[in-house]
Amino acid sequence: MDLEDLKRRAAEAAVGYVHSGMRLGLGTGTTTRWAVERIGALLAAGELADVVGVPTSRATEALMRRVGIPVVELDERGVDLAIDGADEIAPDLTLVKGHGGALLREKIVEAAAGRFIVIADHTKRVHVIGEKKAVPIEIARFGWRRTVSLIEALGARCTVRLDGNHEPALSDNGNLLVDAHFGPVGDPRGLEQQLLALPGVFEVGLFVGLADLAIVAGPDGKLEELS
Amino acid sequence: MDLEDLKRRAAEAAVGYVHSGMRLGLGTGTTTRWAVERIGALLAAGELADVVGVPTSRATEALMRRVGIPVVELDERGVDLAIDGADEIAPDLTLVKGHGGALLREKIVEAAAGRFIVIADHTKRVHVIGEKKAVPIEIARFGWRRTVSLIEALGARCTVRLDGNHEPALSDNGNLLVDAHFGPVGDPRGLEQQLLALPGVFEVGLFVGLADLAIVAGPDGKLEELS
Repeated sequence: MDLEDLKRRAAEAAVGYVHSGMRLGLGTGTTTRWAVERIGALLAAGELADVVGVPTSRATEALMRRVGIPVVELDERGVDLAIDGADEIAPDLTLVKGHGGALLREKIVEAAAGRFIVIADHTKRVHVIGEKKAVPIEIARFGWRRTVSLIEALGARCTVRLDGNHEPALSDNGNLLVDAHFGPVGDPRGLEQQLLALPGVFEVGLFVGLADLAIVAGPDGKLEELS
Repeated sequence: MDLEDLKRRAAEAAVGYVHSGMRLGLGTGTTTRWAVERIGALLAAGELADVVGVPTSRATEALMRRVGIPVVELDERGVDLAIDGADEIAPDLTLVKGHGGALLREKIVEAAAGRFIVIADHTKRVHVIGEKKAVPIEIARFGWRRTVSLIEALGARCTVRLDGNHEPALSDNGNLLVDAHFGPVGDPRGLEQQLLALPGVFEVGLFVGLADLAIVAGPDGKLEELS
């Protein structure tokens, strides 16, 4: 089966956990898109009702409006259930996220979720976080060269994400995104704390202790649930 | 002596540590303003030369241009010396900063300084951080109500800083500022870590281990140096 089919299978399985009346957090990316479309279809068919969602990006907000999921702001209550993809998933459900550029809003929403289900195809599974992917980090524009040098002093090789004009690209929040190549990360929570302690670092694409359940589609389409 | 005289005395004493050729970090507020003006005067008189500065706010940048201090961006090298005021100074030189709204840029610059001198009048001295002032915190606009509720769950009473139209005021970086009233803070470093770990919190106005020297003007104008 091709990867899009696998993403769709994982996403639609996660939507099985959505019930009428829920306040959802909806992630960003090519896997989550299938979940958003499925929820929209179930609302249109009357199989779900009174579902609202907090989008984690402008792209997801636009998609929600297109498929008919009412958009709400995140407030004190948080959300009942968040669904999102990931760039890497470790056996303990530690995640790398942010290659789509939405890590800050995703982390705010997913930390505010009663339950967070991560969905993926099998290519996202790793033994150790950092094995394949860089750790995306959202940083302040002010002093960004200094902040990048501080991140590199922790052992990473960094690249600043660029836009089409080869200028630093801005996140939805007006900040810069750095991809920090650390290689395999033995202590993700410790690294996250070290990074957050750097002035100029706003948020880190290491999600430790946030995901409650992973639904991963294998090469044959078979779904595996990890928790 | 009135408070302005005391601020000026402390500021001018700190400028005694400025040498020709230095790259400075220049803070924000009514005390630092005296230092910026003094450095400008010394440059104009030819008593200092080849001094450049990184401003920590748009207001300081405008003042630097007015008094003739060349403005540079913060880069990998950091700065040789930073001079700034504070809202509270504890005996171990832990600071509360950010009541002027510039805490994020101040922290980036002052953490990048070879030496950081804090200047104040005696009313800023406290026995314990948090004794008189709230801890300013810069947070993301996205999901701010949720982020405020997470800060309150750590024991603070919070007020969101408003602009003239009673709307949340934006920092120079486009974020919101929350004043978190914790009362006396026994473990500022621990509290800072707890706050930074909250998604949506960008920076915290607790400056622990950053100031190298405090110059404080007493009620009679006498200067005290703490280090």
